[in-house]
Amino acid sequence: MKLWGGRFEGQTDEAMERLGASLDVDWRLYEVDIRGSMAYARALSKVGILTTVECSEINEGLERILEEFRSDSFVVSPGDEDVHTAVERRLHELIGEVAGKLHTGRSRNDQVATDTRMYLSKQIVLLRGGLRSAQRAVVIQAGNHLDVIMPGYTHGQPAQPVLFAHWLLSYFWMLQRDVERLDELAERVSVSPLGAGALAGNAFGVDRAELARELGFAGISANSIDAVSDRDFIVEFLSWAALLGVHLSRLAADLVLWSSAEYGFVEIDEAYSTGSSIMPQKRNPDSMELVRGKAGRLIGNLMTVLATLKGLPASYNRDLQEDKPPLFDAIDTLFLILPVVVGVVETLRIRPERMRMALGDGMLATDLADYLVRRGVPFRESHRIVGEAIRRAEAANTSLRELALAEYQAISDAFSQDLYDVFNFERSVRSKNVPGGTAPSVVRKQLALARGILDGNSENTRQ
Amino acid sequence: MKLWGGRFEGQTDEAMERLGASLDVDWRLYEVDIRGSMAYARALSKVGILTTVECSEINEGLERILEEFRSDSFVVSPGDEDVHTAVERRLHELIGEVAGKLHTGRSRNDQVATDTRMYLSKQIVLLRGGLRSAQRAVVIQAGNHLDVIMPGYTHGQPAQPVLFAHWLLSYFWMLQRDVERLDELAERVSVSPLGAGALAGNAFGVDRAELARELGFAGISANSIDAVSDRDFIVEFLSWAALLGVHLSRLAADLVLWSSAEYGFVEIDEAYSTGSSIMPQKRNPDSMELVRGKAGRLIGNLMTVLATLKGLPASYNRDLQEDKPPLFDAIDTLFLILPVVVGVVETLRIRPERMRMALGDGMLATDLADYLVRRGVPFRESHRIVGEAIRRAEAANTSLRELALAEYQAISDAFSQDLYDVFNFERSVRSKNVPGGTAPSVVRKQLALARGILDGNSENTRQ
Amino acid sequence: MKLWGGRFEGQTDEAMERLGASLDVDWRLYEVDIRGSMAYARALSKVGILTTVECSEINEGLERILEEFRSDSFVVSPGDEDVHTAVERRLHELIGEVAGKLHTGRSRNDQVATDTRMYLSKQIVLLRGGLRSAQRAVVIQAGNHLDVIMPGYTHGQPAQPVLFAHWLLSYFWMLQRDVERLDELAERVSVSPLGAGALAGNAFGVDRAELARELGFAGISANSIDAVSDRDFIVEFLSWAALLGVHLSRLAADLVLWSSAEYGFVEIDEAYSTGSSIMPQKRNPDSMELVRGKAGRLIGNLMTVLATLKGLPASYNRDLQEDKPPLFDAIDTLFLILPVVVGVVETLRIRPERMRMALGDGMLATDLADYLVRRGVPFRESHRIVGEAIRRAEAANTSLRELALAEYQAISDAFSQDLYDVFNFERSVRSKNVPGGTAPSVVRKQLALARGILDGNSENTRQ
Amino acid sequence: MKLWGGRFEGQTDEAMERLGASLDVDWRLYEVDIRGSMAYARALSKVGILTTVECSEINEGLERILEEFRSDSFVVSPGDEDVHTAVERRLHELIGEVAGKLHTGRSRNDQVATDTRMYLSKQIVLLRGGLRSAQRAVVIQAGNHLDVIMPGYTHGQPAQPVLFAHWLLSYFWMLQRDVERLDELAERVSVSPLGAGALAGNAFGVDRAELARELGFAGISANSIDAVSDRDFIVEFLSWAALLGVHLSRLAADLVLWSSAEYGFVEIDEAYSTGSSIMPQKRNPDSMELVRGKAGRLIGNLMTVLATLKGLPASYNRDLQEDKPPLFDAIDTLFLILPVVVGVVETLRIRPERMRMALGDGMLATDLADYLVRRGVPFRESHRIVGEAIRRAEAANTSLRELALAEYQAISDAFSQDLYDVFNFERSVRSKNVPGGTAPSVVRKQLALARGILDGNSENTRQ
Repeated sequence: MKLWGGRFEGQTDEAMERLGASLDVDWRLYEVDIRGSMAYARALSKVGILTTVECSEINEGLERILEEFRSDSFVVSPGDEDVHTAVERRLHELIGEVAGKLHTGRSRNDQVATDTRMYLSKQIVLLRGGLRSAQRAVVIQAGNHLDVIMPGYTHGQPAQPVLFAHWLLSYFWMLQRDVERLDELAERVSVSPLGAGALAGNAFGVDRAELARELGFAGISANSIDAVSDRDFIVEFLSWAALLGVHLSRLAADLVLWSSAEYGFVEIDEAYSTGSSIMPQKRNPDSMELVRGKAGRLIGNLMTVLATLKGLPASYNRDLQEDKPPLFDAIDTLFLILPVVVGVVETLRIRPERMRMALGDGMLATDLADYLVRRGVPFRESHRIVGEAIRRAEAANTSLRELALAEYQAISDAFSQDLYDVFNFERSVRSKNVPGGTAPSVVRKQLALARGILDGNSENTRQ
Repeated sequence: MKLWGGRFEGQTDEAMERLGASLDVDWRLYEVDIRGSMAYARALSKVGILTTVECSEINEGLERILEEFRSDSFVVSPGDEDVHTAVERRLHELIGEVAGKLHTGRSRNDQVATDTRMYLSKQIVLLRGGLRSAQRAVVIQAGNHLDVIMPGYTHGQPAQPVLFAHWLLSYFWMLQRDVERLDELAERVSVSPLGAGALAGNAFGVDRAELARELGFAGISANSIDAVSDRDFIVEFLSWAALLGVHLSRLAADLVLWSSAEYGFVEIDEAYSTGSSIMPQKRNPDSMELVRGKAGRLIGNLMTVLATLKGLPASYNRDLQEDKPPLFDAIDTLFLILPVVVGVVETLRIRPERMRMALGDGMLATDLADYLVRRGVPFRESHRIVGEAIRRAEAANTSLRELALAEYQAISDAFSQDLYDVFNFERSVRSKNVPGGTAPSVVRKQLALARGILDGNSENTRQ
Repeated sequence: MKLWGGRFEGQTDEAMERLGASLDVDWRLYEVDIRGSMAYARALSKVGILTTVECSEINEGLERILEEFRSDSFVVSPGDEDVHTAVERRLHELIGEVAGKLHTGRSRNDQVATDTRMYLSKQIVLLRGGLRSAQRAVVIQAGNHLDVIMPGYTHGQPAQPVLFAHWLLSYFWMLQRDVERLDELAERVSVSPLGAGALAGNAFGVDRAELARELGFAGISANSIDAVSDRDFIVEFLSWAALLGVHLSRLAADLVLWSSAEYGFVEIDEAYSTGSSIMPQKRNPDSMELVRGKAGRLIGNLMTVLATLKGLPASYNRDLQEDKPPLFDAIDTLFLILPVVVGVVETLRIRPERMRMALGDGMLATDLADYLVRRGVPFRESHRIVGEAIRRAEAANTSLRELALAEYQAISDAFSQDLYDVFNFERSVRSKNVPGGTAPSVVRKQLALARGILDGNSENTRQ
Repeated sequence: MKLWGGRFEGQTDEAMERLGASLDVDWRLYEVDIRGSMAYARALSKVGILTTVECSEINEGLERILEEFRSDSFVVSPGDEDVHTAVERRLHELIGEVAGKLHTGRSRNDQVATDTRMYLSKQIVLLRGGLRSAQRAVVIQAGNHLDVIMPGYTHGQPAQPVLFAHWLLSYFWMLQRDVERLDELAERVSVSPLGAGALAGNAFGVDRAELARELGFAGISANSIDAVSDRDFIVEFLSWAALLGVHLSRLAADLVLWSSAEYGFVEIDEAYSTGSSIMPQKRNPDSMELVRGKAGRLIGNLMTVLATLKGLPASYNRDLQEDKPPLFDAIDTLFLILPVVVGVVETLRIRPERMRMALGDGMLATDLADYLVRRGVPFRESHRIVGEAIRRAEAANTSLRELALAEYQAISDAFSQDLYDVFNFERSVRSKNVPGGTAPSVVRKQLALARGILDGNSENTRQ
């Protein structure tokens, strides 16, 4: 059944039918579509377009269709070009001509926008739960290893010692920004376009605010032309998903690196590793590689929608149908990777001894420069002096810690015996005790802050 | 002067110098860089690293350098690899060795992140003003043409009559979402990384919260590793800019189309048009074409940063230097196009007579179906009936309005003489009187709502 | 069945199984996978790893599996993580332990790269046919309307008269470049990685060149590490697809515009149009809108792969699994849109009278300037003079053609009575008779050139 | 001076002037622009539009302007909106009104397309030289370390031993494909649009083929509408640049990783490293990080142009002006990074002892499975057996090499004493002796092949 064939005489070309069909993509909207139609029937009833009896017939028919979908017994008909058509076609089969009253004043333009927003709103709640689970896993692992010191890197080179927990908590804050952004964009998703009609508004005086409330929206759109063509909420969501993907990809990159034979700082559980079809010894961090790879896809989805929207003229254009494949793909992708990220973090084995082995004296060079600073040497000069000490140590094939006092004093008379106290990783870490620093005392506060955020959101239990 | 040469023996390769140099890009950060250094000097003074005298020397030196930049008399030295180096080098020239104390406990990693955030925060205020100006221009033009009816299009085809003001106001709401998003992301830009050091935190106990307040930040980062590598705020800003670009590009697409000879609905002022080097008659809407084109660039900038960040390992990596060219380019691009958009809208000439000419009976077909609905015909059936009437009218080479009553009644006996009352564009428009609809009464309310939003933000005068 | 579980003790997490599974994506590779395995079995037989009997058993088993796939009777087993695993599992069921010999010296790394290249090579042949069909449709329509003059536009504004056929043929050349590029990249797709093993090469001396020949490849890869991680051919293909998408999107944009009520230059057949669920009069060019929209998706697919590959370390990484969804999606998308484009062009109705109505005197302003040039006035001066004439005509509310000779002569004495001969669209078109110009005589040559290209490729009949 | 102001009465808005101005971007086209104009003047002379004397005046004037540009003494005038306008304005100053004849029959539309193609053609030759230099550096380093064995990785985990030279040569082939693609696209860049006019062709019969030859083009465009709006060559170039960027980014990722303290396989020369402003010990691989980061920018440039072109209507639109910033940025970026890549590879220090230390017995597990295969055990079973041996070795905290024969035989009686011969990295490497494998004998052939390619292109000496 086509909803629009009245004025047409010819047949639609078969290739065109294939191109236009979206039922396999929008199938998942069946529940929100039906719920939306049920509310709309009630709204039509309130303004007298439907009698009470008709409204009941329609709603009972829709309820039954919903059951058919849920029990997987809904039978697709060849002409069902999308889920909206399929539902209306089936309703007609079930209750006859009165089904034809449901679409009064409503267009697929406002209907599909309403459905997509309702669907996305529900997914956002679930995704938020997934994020909270990931944050929780981070907090638990960080709390379990508060005393572990590891090399901090910049440029992939050893920089300064940091707590493992500090490194791990850095991901808590990335995810926390993701939660904040998700909460903000959720507000803009929760705006009802229903009643915007094709583009000009509804001519039957349906109560848009009431409809919105009933369907769980926080508000209604202020302009019907904007309402039917606005896909900002999809761009926002996909931007959000791409950035979340980047965060998870960075975490994955760290874990792939650190689970290498050469680093060996962590071990990814077998449950999240795979082997090789040819090399029997292999234990590959596929889980994290796939997470890293999926970020590319999330970025691609965003680009798809931006490129599609750019330069479109006002109002509804059919190009907008192309919003759903990338949106749904992004949602599905996140539901695939979030539980794996949670599981990998939860089951991660930390190897403090390998981290300790990787700590080298060079990572305390800044502490040594700071030592000179405390003795009045301007930092830029201290930096130069320590650089000179490093060169001497390298020339003598020794380390900073082993370099003789005389050698140090040959460079600067600001050095004295207590310089060697610097070579203490615990001490170095402790010294970074400003808020947000890596000193154990402030990392504990950071952890408490993180826990507080999670507890303040105790409704968000692990999905 | 290099800030880091101590341990190096060899020379940097010349091609490497060129690749690494960023002074031409980060030059514009000079003011925030110097302000940041002045505050940092005071912070060092408070913890006893600088004496009061040293602090004054440094701050006076920095003040002088700021003047040099402002008066364009700052002289770049060949070794100035970036603006931070240039300032420190010059400070050393001006005040000698004490300049070397400024960098104590601070790294370029936290410094550059601080500078970028300060700079962006300032630009955001200005950009917000630009958006408000564009919204204001929209509101004024809409208010001036409240009675003009034009064809509303979907799929580029005539759909239903709408008010010109209604169409124009649809852009108000797009921009309003842009303002909201900008306000939200501004919160996350305004987080101070200063005191995060290279990645581990500051070892001299500088007061991060005080530093942040002094520099106008709303808060401080909670984790030093995150602080030096977090570029979320840039991704957020570029996502925002890309979506704003899409909005402006859609507006531009509408105006290019409507200023064509065939539509002729609007005329873009000569001040925003250009001619042709070869065709004397040409008056091209270059302003709007360029706005449409720039959206591609804004999308590309976002892609640049997402691709660069994806898969980077933890903490600071030099790749992050590539954040600034796309960020600055996006800012510059928006400052180029926003005033042009404002000007084009403000000076746009509306041609109501051309819009009226483009209104055809077919656009009232839905009203005719609605007429039948009110007589009890189910909408789906009314739709079919009107489709049939259209085919008859086409076959008879006439219009719906001219089609004889007998013809109508041959299709359905629900038609009677009053069907012809439907052929009234004003009436059609008036009937869409739900909130957000195109009826003049509700568009007036929409306009009032828009004005209220602008008035509540009366500080945002035209830039 | 897992191909790699030997050293593992634990179970794979269920979420990880879901994330890693690719059978629904790579299912379509079954035929090339089986063909590749059959050839590989023969290669192993030649080097003595398989006896003749074993080789026959394997090949008969594989043949039977191929039949199962083709007849849709292949039964997936829960552990089938990809099509390669599924085939090997089934082979083991059919012929027992000897199946385990097939993977000798081969890795999924070289296997999947081989499969993907074989598959893509086949699709390229079909896509090339689709392009040729589109070119053929263009040539036929152009040939049928060689005498139709229409406005040529630049900046969306009337510029100079051109032949409709000339406009349409411009798409022939875009598509011709697409064919050329496709032919070139096909060469690089047709390189066999088989025998590269996991990354180091094959230790059993299989004849790589013979394998390649048997499987229809044009050559073999020169380096085994490159062979397993090279996805250049996918990037190339997706770049190609994105650019083809842009071409089709531009064609679609033209046709959407020209089938608008205001232009009315063309009519898209009902077979490629759809109606509205609410507005009975609608006949929307959905086919072309969808084609325009799909270009965004093709661009997004390219970005997905580029972002995924960027910064990956050497050799095979699991991220590379993410190459196939965008590759297959691009192929499927093109197979959806190409036949629709062909159909739309073939059935397009041209409305010469509407084109003629849209021709205005202003479009001959350049001809008028050229007239002055031929009388010795420097072009820049002629341009200025005609601009002045246009202003006078506008002021007098008349057209260039109606402007009195006295008015012309008041601006320049280079004008004389024969200036009015300029106002002839046929003459204007005829004057552009350089190669590639719009004069009918040279457009005929262009058309002959296009036909020659198609005929020289007569093997490429309509798919 | 505007080239187009005749019919305009008002002033251009200042913001619009800024938006439209492109002189800072297209400045670099001055030479090709002037060369193009000189040739065009001669073409006009041949068809009688210019006298011989006029042609000489114009060409002498243009020659003088070229000198002014070259000697940096060209003075920009406020109204110079682009380089083409600037040149014509200056020509007018120098030679008076005859300058106005130069633009006869030529539009900026064909002029700018011609200029861009000429410019790009020249850059392509230089870039090709840069690629050849990088390949040469690879070949030399590979040739110098033909006996060095290192771990080959897949999934970032040790896989099988390979030659360092084999790994390095994998980049030769990536770059070789880049050279091939560049050669192919260069053909499509070298097509002259000159004579296409605004869009309809040239009305003065200039000899397009002769013009093309004179300007070094390989051919002329076949359709004038396509000629002025075709930007395929830019998309092709940017796709090429993005993929080259990905290759260099992957090389950079390898080198950053391998120059880490934990791997230590290579050392990047000080000339391509930098230090830290705060940490005296640092020696960071900034060169490679920047190369990795720039790939994001090259991808973003491609996205910019694709998004800009998608959906544009036919013929020239001003949006096309946005093609040049990303094109020029990509060229500049490649000229920044290519010499650094060359330098880094040439000066790279290889540390064979660290590579050797990283080789572990596990990497010979496949060889052990192959050993069983040669004794008749089906590979899938061998794989399982060796997996079992690995688990036993891990349980006993020993290595495969140390595991007792009795233990092996307890798993499978196919093992005998000679199994220990497998534990020989040289032997493992030698066994991969199919073409493209890592056996020294075939790597030598690969190297010879690579040298042959370079020698066959001996004109491409180091830039």
